Amino acid sequence: MPDPSTTPPLTRASVQAAHDLIKPYVHETPVLTNSTLDQLASTPRTVEELKGTEWEGVERVANPRIRFWFKCENFQRIGAFKARGAFHAVERLKKEEGLEGLRGTGVVTHSSGNHAQALSLAARENGIPAYIVMPDISPPPKIAATKGYGANITFSGSTSTEREAVTREVIEKTGARLVPPYDHPDIILGQGTAALELQSQVSTALSTSGTTTRRLNAVITPCGGGGLLSGTALACSDPSAQGGPILVFGAEPSFSGADDGRRGYYSGTRIESVKSLTIADGLRTPLGAYPWSIIYERKLVAGMYSVGEEEIKKALRLVYERMKVVVEPSAVVGLAVALYNEEFRSMVEREAGEEGWDLGVVFSGGNVELAALARLFGEERVVRRA
Amino acid sequence: MPDPSTTPPLTRASVQAAHDLIKPYVHETPVLTNSTLDQLASTPRTVEELKGTEWEGVERVANPRIRFWFKCENFQRIGAFKARGAFHAVERLKKEEGLEGLRGTGVVTHSSGNHAQALSLAARENGIPAYIVMPDISPPPKIAATKGYGANITFSGSTSTEREAVTREVIEKTGARLVPPYDHPDIILGQGTAALELQSQVSTALSTSGTTTRRLNAVITPCGGGGLLSGTALACSDPSAQGGPILVFGAEPSFSGADDGRRGYYSGTRIESVKSLTIADGLRTPLGAYPWSIIYERKLVAGMYSVGEEEIKKALRLVYERMKVVVEPSAVVGLAVALYNEEFRSMVEREAGEEGWDLGVVFSGGNVELAALARLFGEERVVRRA
Repeated sequence: MPDPSTTPPLTRASVQAAHDLIKPYVHETPVLTNSTLDQLASTPRTVEELKGTEWEGVERVANPRIRFWFKCENFQRIGAFKARGAFHAVERLKKEEGLEGLRGTGVVTHSSGNHAQALSLAARENGIPAYIVMPDISPPPKIAATKGYGANITFSGSTSTEREAVTREVIEKTGARLVPPYDHPDIILGQGTAALELQSQVSTALSTSGTTTRRLNAVITPCGGGGLLSGTALACSDPSAQGGPILVFGAEPSFSGADDGRRGYYSGTRIESVKSLTIADGLRTPLGAYPWSIIYERKLVAGMYSVGEEEIKKALRLVYERMKVVVEPSAVVGLAVALYNEEFRSMVEREAGEEGWDLGVVFSGGNVELAALARLFGEERVVRRA
Repeated sequence: MPDPSTTPPLTRASVQAAHDLIKPYVHETPVLTNSTLDQLASTPRTVEELKGTEWEGVERVANPRIRFWFKCENFQRIGAFKARGAFHAVERLKKEEGLEGLRGTGVVTHSSGNHAQALSLAARENGIPAYIVMPDISPPPKIAATKGYGANITFSGSTSTEREAVTREVIEKTGARLVPPYDHPDIILGQGTAALELQSQVSTALSTSGTTTRRLNAVITPCGGGGLLSGTALACSDPSAQGGPILVFGAEPSFSGADDGRRGYYSGTRIESVKSLTIADGLRTPLGAYPWSIIYERKLVAGMYSVGEEEIKKALRLVYERMKVVVEPSAVVGLAVALYNEEFRSMVEREAGEEGWDLGVVFSGGNVELAALARLFGEERVVRRA
């Protein structure tokens, strides 16, 4: 792991410097809009829809005006924003250790998901060996995908103690440098680059269409370990550089405690352990210490919101049916909050007033196993026919 | 139905005129590229892969070089290219009859699919009533979607005789003008506009990247009734206007006779009846008379190819997993031909030589019911685990 004491300060300028470093390696992913979803978000939910939710019988249903800008990191290399952080961490290690040194030792991480693939790709493109520690219960397609990027895979037990022990063994044997999935400044700065692009893409689109009175008002991202959310918060943290304040919000699944970030944020104590099997499988991790310092201590995130599994599925269905893009369940949690969380919607109505908000939504990734998708939508079909 | 004797000549210039008419109403859909799929198409298939296909034991496996340009009509309004033909037909009827006249009588078609939604949308945006005759066994989501565009739905039996009888009744009662799904010059000219855009988008992309030695060499589209294929052939029919010849190919499912276009093309007699339950459900219709005159009689299509159901599923899986876009099974039949039909691949190798081809592939639509998708990919999972 690069020595944190040598990392750049956690500021918007450092996110820009990270962007300069990784630009040759990552895609500037497209930003999509969708008038059907705008209309849906800008229509009050019906009393019928709110039945059975925590807002059943609420006195007044929220009526915000929302125009979405979807930053499509599902089209990013390896199919997720994680490529940004991994390429940035590797660039920084190259600076610290030299490319030749790093080629001799390699990089290592423990992950069964998008970060494993991202680090494997970043290593391969630099001719650096990548060692990936994966739980032995990982789904075969994920193992195959990571192997496909040329990584050396070592299996471990599935508890964090077991994974960390195996990771230490790999480091002792190879001298590989650890690149953690989210709890490191270099990773956070890399992930923040998506929001930088979003700012300039929205601003270009609005000025091209001659809409000079509007600007990006807020961004909502999914929050698992918090790398993407805290990086986004840094990218939006300098109002003078971006034509005014851009508020940043985090979105989590509420299922069986996966909303650790939200609970920590409103109680003032970071929650360090999560055991949730939410369908948003990228968001089952607790918030890391570095992300927490940005999100909570520096108050660069303006609020945290959560939604239930059914709401995530509904948002997923809308994105497939209306936008025709493939996203993983974790990717749509921000959209689900904007569509279905009355607390968030009331806040937007209050803050944005008549003019409404131009709201950036980061679609974090598109790596969904099709069989898993089939189970998800197949089940719904059965339920609807019952 | 507009009097065919008043329609413009079936030429590239008329496709351009159609484009001018419909531009305010339809999207210029994006063109995507994908290096993984290029690599796959440019790698010879293995002996193992060819086992059990009609090319098992072939002497020499094809080794073409293909660079794909995917024209994404799944992002078109109503989720399919059909919006182009429907808007063009309505514009032409407005010219013939006047908008006020048309508002008094309306338009009518029989379709349970994308054309029904396309005509309903085109009518609604012009304040014209739309009457849609649908088989009473149509899937509820398709009925709901068409109703969602404000159409008046009349149900009929599912044979073509029954549908046509009900359509005649609607016309007698309302005076509505018939807009057929594919077998009409105005529809064909409208559908051809996608290929016009593709030509200019590829040419812009190549010149932006400084690649002046390459150009669009060929286009392959799915073929059901033949509206898209014949329109594409017209759009590519004037080599002097487009910097050289662009060959056009049609792709069909081979399952239970859905390759009627191919069989007719190589036997010289149009096949007028098809009864296939191919998963490419948009391609279950026989080739129409107008499309046939362009495809076969004028020889504006250079060849017709077909692929099996498993190959369509494999291509579908690749598009979801690698490109992260939602397409319907019919949309990927052209890609499946380019990846898996040895006859097509040998022809490309022969015609294109070392330099290879820049091959346009039209993704015709993205309207897939998620439950149907679940069945498709769910089954595959079971098969793989068996």
